[in-house]
Amino acid sequence: MQQQKLFINAQRLADTIEQFADFGRTANNGVTRLALSEQDIAVRGYFHSCCEQLGMTVVVDDMGCMYATLAGTEDTPPIVLGSHMDTVKKGGRFDGILGVIAGLEIVRTLVDHGITPRIPITVMNFTNEEGARFEPSMMASGVLSGKFAKTDMLNKKDSDGITFGDALVQSGYAGEESNRIQAATAYLELHIEQGPVLEREKLHIGLVDCVVGMVCYEIEITGESDHAGTTPMDMRKDAFFAMNDLVSTLRTQLSALDSELVYTMGRANIYPNIHTVIPNKVIFTLEARHKNEEVVREVERIIQSLPAVQGDCEVTTTKLWGRDTVWFDPAICERLERSVQTLGYSYKTMASGAGHDAQFVASFLPSAMVFVPSVNGKSHCEEELTSYEDCEKGINVLLDTVLGILEG
Amino acid sequence: MQQQKLFINAQRLADTIEQFADFGRTANNGVTRLALSEQDIAVRGYFHSCCEQLGMTVVVDDMGCMYATLAGTEDTPPIVLGSHMDTVKKGGRFDGILGVIAGLEIVRTLVDHGITPRIPITVMNFTNEEGARFEPSMMASGVLSGKFAKTDMLNKKDSDGITFGDALVQSGYAGEESNRIQAATAYLELHIEQGPVLEREKLHIGLVDCVVGMVCYEIEITGESDHAGTTPMDMRKDAFFAMNDLVSTLRTQLSALDSELVYTMGRANIYPNIHTVIPNKVIFTLEARHKNEEVVREVERIIQSLPAVQGDCEVTTTKLWGRDTVWFDPAICERLERSVQTLGYSYKTMASGAGHDAQFVASFLPSAMVFVPSVNGKSHCEEELTSYEDCEKGINVLLDTVLGILEG
Repeated sequence: MQQQKLFINAQRLADTIEQFADFGRTANNGVTRLALSEQDIAVRGYFHSCCEQLGMTVVVDDMGCMYATLAGTEDTPPIVLGSHMDTVKKGGRFDGILGVIAGLEIVRTLVDHGITPRIPITVMNFTNEEGARFEPSMMASGVLSGKFAKTDMLNKKDSDGITFGDALVQSGYAGEESNRIQAATAYLELHIEQGPVLEREKLHIGLVDCVVGMVCYEIEITGESDHAGTTPMDMRKDAFFAMNDLVSTLRTQLSALDSELVYTMGRANIYPNIHTVIPNKVIFTLEARHKNEEVVREVERIIQSLPAVQGDCEVTTTKLWGRDTVWFDPAICERLERSVQTLGYSYKTMASGAGHDAQFVASFLPSAMVFVPSVNGKSHCEEELTSYEDCEKGINVLLDTVLGILEG
Repeated sequence: MQQQKLFINAQRLADTIEQFADFGRTANNGVTRLALSEQDIAVRGYFHSCCEQLGMTVVVDDMGCMYATLAGTEDTPPIVLGSHMDTVKKGGRFDGILGVIAGLEIVRTLVDHGITPRIPITVMNFTNEEGARFEPSMMASGVLSGKFAKTDMLNKKDSDGITFGDALVQSGYAGEESNRIQAATAYLELHIEQGPVLEREKLHIGLVDCVVGMVCYEIEITGESDHAGTTPMDMRKDAFFAMNDLVSTLRTQLSALDSELVYTMGRANIYPNIHTVIPNKVIFTLEARHKNEEVVREVERIIQSLPAVQGDCEVTTTKLWGRDTVWFDPAICERLERSVQTLGYSYKTMASGAGHDAQFVASFLPSAMVFVPSVNGKSHCEEELTSYEDCEKGINVLLDTVLGILEG
């Protein structure tokens, strides 16, 4: 199977990206394609027909995941290329769909060149990765990996009260549990970075070695709601000022830990939230992510060391959840790095700060991810953009790795 | 009219406080008596009958304010003793009603002793001081003083969509505009302190020389909502962290101004308020009060000197409102001080941090207020408490001052 180096068809790729974006394209050139919506069902049909034209066999599992397989000459577990086709409301043209298009374009390239692969190639679409219509996100990959219970997921409702289970049946994509992927030679997912790092460092490719571990805490401060006009400053139990001091302490300590640590206090509610009343309660979240679990433990120690009383207010902390870092398959990561080097693209090895289907898939299939740059680091919005050239490079990396695996 | 020193009837006062608290008394010994509610209408009827039993004439103005007058021997503007009978939801037994009961008890004491006053004595009940059912607070005194337009107020709606005007007509308390108070020898309002100062300093009486001036600003910080997992710390425009820094700056500068300055950041809203998203906007209020208007100006200068950019986020400030300090009538304040000294009660001269009907009344009638201690500084809650003995002392101060005015 030794051959001249193959590349994908750049023009076809650009066209394909736009053809897929037509399913749910918004006035501002974004995409709204919620899981199992009319637009999602339409794009699934289009994907199905594209695959059938290539001679692929398409099956669907009981979570609605689609598997389009180009048969191999050997009966071995497939090389899987996949991601998701659903988007958030007013999302972009690249998040998720790019990983599916990558698989399609790779198969098209093989077919272009009359290559019948030794190992089957499966292109996958995971259902409801975004969780934008039915929470939680990564629903199908969560069920396939045993992280979520299928019956719980079938009962999840969208904002109209429609269950995921009913929407699945209605869509015509309630398939067979026996079709679920159970073994693979490799699972490869191309995705946009959804962050600004590659662009800032002027790199084309991010080789993702892990999805970072994280913790999320809720911190509750209880003071006393006295009258804003009649209570002298030294007699107040002001929960907002106590929060201000705690947040300063936390920021100082967290910023000293590691430059790659990210931490966010994204949600904060003040009570009673009336301008003339001293706040008697504040509840805010602190979420932190780092690939080194010891750094995450340090974050937890800092949170747990907060004073029990701050500014005469009581302080309690509650861990909402945490997850360990998910490391990708070192052998696949190494293959991908060789491919990038062969192709001469600039790159770095990096962690994924966001969650992806691959992080669940990694628990039962040898997996890895490749990132391509997000302009201005934006995603989950209509401005979301990755240049066609960067998309092309990312897929060429996957193609080279697939060919490498096929060569054995 | 020279006479032995008169005191009110302490036992009758305690009974009267509880009789009035029966109108709307809650399970936890508080009171819910929203303006023009069934309970308010009932307590108005009871007040009316109490006054008629004393030979007083009761009239009502076009804002529902009640005026019960004990005729004097001279045709001069009355001495007015008043406050309000409405409460907040689950309020206390003292806020407002105490000032009305004070007037009633003083007239009862005069009648007990067969005194026909030289100057008429009017006991007043202002409608909707709390603004708990119909915003704004101090509605009727605001209209009487020309601060609020009557037609605007009549159109104010409660949470059920009932207008103040309709509720007024329904209550039977829509009286004549010609009954509005237009002149008085003095307006005296006894009120609970609603703060902890008198209790902390173990004083019985607060002589109120002013209602403090205040300003309220809204501060808006605009950053960028990026992904909490994928955006490095040094590339964020986190509006929450910017707020944290601004609040620290403000607290440092404000706390250096004057120990009597009170400032509160009572309302803060974070957007989008999702734990996994970097906040792109925070809007919070800063309200500050001090009797010295120069200190209030300093607060404004500090707010206006905030940086336009903090942590890469834009900062804008908007003045929501301000009011100047309202000074009470010096001659009446002096009389009250002489009365307290004569009676031998411990006291201090203090500012009112809260708003009261007297602050509007002071614009057209010579006015002053007396405070009695609030246990734990609490008000607008069921635990609100002032001892009967402190209520008694407060009313004795007013009685002594009324007698002094009557003596001429």
